[in-house]
Amino acid sequence: MTRVVAQGTFDILHPGHVHYFRDAAEMGDELHVIIARSENVTHKEPPVVPDEQRREMVAALKPVDEAHLGHPEDIFVPIERLDPDIIALGYDQHHDEAKLQQALAERGIDCEVRRASALDRDDPERLLSTGRIIDRVLDERGD
Amino acid sequence: MTRVVAQGTFDILHPGHVHYFRDAAEMGDELHVIIARSENVTHKEPPVVPDEQRREMVAALKPVDEAHLGHPEDIFVPIERLDPDIIALGYDQHHDEAKLQQALAERGIDCEVRRASALDRDDPERLLSTGRIIDRVLDERGD
Repeated sequence: MTRVVAQGTFDILHPGHVHYFRDAAEMGDELHVIIARSENVTHKEPPVVPDEQRREMVAALKPVDEAHLGHPEDIFVPIERLDPDIIALGYDQHHDEAKLQQALAERGIDCEVRRASALDRDDPERLLSTGRIIDRVLDERGD
Repeated sequence: MTRVVAQGTFDILHPGHVHYFRDAAEMGDELHVIIARSENVTHKEPPVVPDEQRREMVAALKPVDEAHLGHPEDIFVPIERLDPDIIALGYDQHHDEAKLQQALAERGIDCEVRRASALDRDDPERLLSTGRIIDRVLDERGD
């Protein structure tokens, strides 16, 4: 039984998220997703959709077994609790794999860090980021 | 084998959509969803998300077996092809059940029309319509 953990903000869902979850799910038998709380999203604008609603929507996707909100202070708390075999990073997530592996080792968490593949973000027919969906909303519905 | 069909625009997904699909799926064994093409959305503003991306996202949800784009000219064409036992209307969809039942009968489509239940749209913690998500985007990210 190989448990995989994926994590992120997942504000307005798009096919890039689904692709990430499919890829992560294929790395093992059971996929758990940790959803960043809005208060902890500091490297980009805070999400539009409330925490619990983002969790609920991720949990409704086929590749996902369970979705959990992150810990407000310590990102490693849910990782320790879930005790995954693999952490699957999104292809564009700004994490240094070696540093993350080292931080996990220091916390006594024995798991492998892998990176999911990318969907073609330049696909002209799809809005493959929350930012592109938000820009489309502002273009079409803004004053 | 009871086949259920649900239909709608499903622009930016939210828990109200998931609730509708769960409810519809529970009416039978197999849920097919027909996604309105943007060109046919005339009773409200056209969707922000492209047709095929909306189809792809609906197909990724757990209660949904298959998602199909609607027919550009005749809404009954996919219904005839899918030959459902039940058409599940969303609780807030502006269709007159008796008139729809009659139109189906005139086309020789023998199926029952039911209505799904509502999620509590006044839930202050959730954005239970695409319109509320769009308003939140405009409030938080607009100029």
